[in-house]
Amino acid sequence: MRQVYINGEFKKEDDAKVSVFDRGLLFSDSLYEVTSVINGKLIDFNNHMKRLDRSMTELKFKKLLNHKDILAFHRKLIELNNLEEGMIYLQVTRGVADRSFDMPKNEIQPTVLAFTQEKKIIESEGAKNGIKVMTLDDMRWKRCDIKTTQLLYASMAKTEATLKGFDDAWMIRQGYITEGSSSNAWIIKGKIIMTRHADNLILSGITREAIFKCAKDLGYEVVTKNISLQDAQSAHEAFITSATAFIMPVVKINSNQIGDGKPGKFTTALRSEYIKQAIATAI
Amino acid sequence: MRQVYINGEFKKEDDAKVSVFDRGLLFSDSLYEVTSVINGKLIDFNNHMKRLDRSMTELKFKKLLNHKDILAFHRKLIELNNLEEGMIYLQVTRGVADRSFDMPKNEIQPTVLAFTQEKKIIESEGAKNGIKVMTLDDMRWKRCDIKTTQLLYASMAKTEATLKGFDDAWMIRQGYITEGSSSNAWIIKGKIIMTRHADNLILSGITREAIFKCAKDLGYEVVTKNISLQDAQSAHEAFITSATAFIMPVVKINSNQIGDGKPGKFTTALRSEYIKQAIATAI
Repeated sequence: MRQVYINGEFKKEDDAKVSVFDRGLLFSDSLYEVTSVINGKLIDFNNHMKRLDRSMTELKFKKLLNHKDILAFHRKLIELNNLEEGMIYLQVTRGVADRSFDMPKNEIQPTVLAFTQEKKIIESEGAKNGIKVMTLDDMRWKRCDIKTTQLLYASMAKTEATLKGFDDAWMIRQGYITEGSSSNAWIIKGKIIMTRHADNLILSGITREAIFKCAKDLGYEVVTKNISLQDAQSAHEAFITSATAFIMPVVKINSNQIGDGKPGKFTTALRSEYIKQAIATAI
Repeated sequence: MRQVYINGEFKKEDDAKVSVFDRGLLFSDSLYEVTSVINGKLIDFNNHMKRLDRSMTELKFKKLLNHKDILAFHRKLIELNNLEEGMIYLQVTRGVADRSFDMPKNEIQPTVLAFTQEKKIIESEGAKNGIKVMTLDDMRWKRCDIKTTQLLYASMAKTEATLKGFDDAWMIRQGYITEGSSSNAWIIKGKIIMTRHADNLILSGITREAIFKCAKDLGYEVVTKNISLQDAQSAHEAFITSATAFIMPVVKINSNQIGDGKPGKFTTALRSEYIKQAIATAI
């Protein structure tokens, strides 16, 4: 049985609970981060913490966590659960208060919880064979740049995709692809790697940012631009990035095969480069 | 200390908790209803249950609750907490599962919780003097017709309004008022009562529906139409409806006074009629 972190304590997963008055449960007034673990070490932890800080600032959460303490309980979770490869999920809610749309005027103590999940990240099926995505309308709220737990639509999209035989969904708003259910969307045409600019309609992925650097290191050109479904379906390669998928080739979008239906060469090179750098800088 | 209902048991409020793996907490995969209580009796309970059923169908939740059982624990909560006037909050989540955007393919047991809150509904300040609302962009998702706990934006809107000296916020999408942070928006011009049509962008309020009947009983004409900010600011009267506010006059929208700045006569008549009918049919 897993050991779960909750508000300063480690508990057996069956005993890890939050109040029914937690604003995370009642109002989705709640943020999260997911950090990958490879060889028992954390990938890009500091950038996840920077993003969490930004999310907390946007929602005006009480500042109380420092990155050292968070790092300490992440490491303790890895140790207690013998985690070699997988992820640590971290959630911070505004805290517990009697139910009211009007947020508490006095600062309340955030609820902090974290747990491990095992996952094969390096040797994944999707990385080997590529994944298939379907597209659907992006019906989410307009602050997708904040990493909140308002994930119902993303979860509905992922579920619809898997029920229809796809691996994931890409969402389209006003004619352009925004992102995947829990990943950023990319295409390659010729030698140019493209992804959507980061605004209020997508989450600026930590892995997305890292890919800009990897691509540069490999001498590839990356541009941010609006990508239509037609652009994507006529791409030479396509891929997704996320903290727990790293880079995953996309070989089919709706009924359209991408390239020759196998992971593309630029995508494969980027994935190798990213893994090399991620492992080298893990803490 | 309140007694709270959770999954078939009544617990002290400090002991009422849900798993950190509850999909309501992790994904906002979760629904709710709030039923008013007057004189220890439930207002419009059956219509709240019908709407809950619809929400559960939309999200493909496992069917397990029957209305009789829900009514029984609502009544027990009223009794245990000596509730005369206020509300019962009911939340149903998809249930507990290891975290995955892909919803569990096997049906899981929903989490069901409910608690009481005291509130002066009949003799409220807002009803006597009217409330002030400010407008802001509606940035919510596009399935506001489902009563989910994805309430962060509504809560942010309400909080911004109260910080700026207003009582609530009305949200505007594509040039038209959608609804309040947790209420429907109405205006009156001449003898015509107007509110937005119910589509995917607003919640079809139980009280909203009741008002159509009350208005008819009083011989008033009600039309559903798109209402712009200009329409609203030039209205003779304005009001909100919700399960726990019933009908509340609006006397100011942004910097514009509505009518003579006091609760309007049609609004006041509608409120009286609604209260009369609501109490007469309470169970």
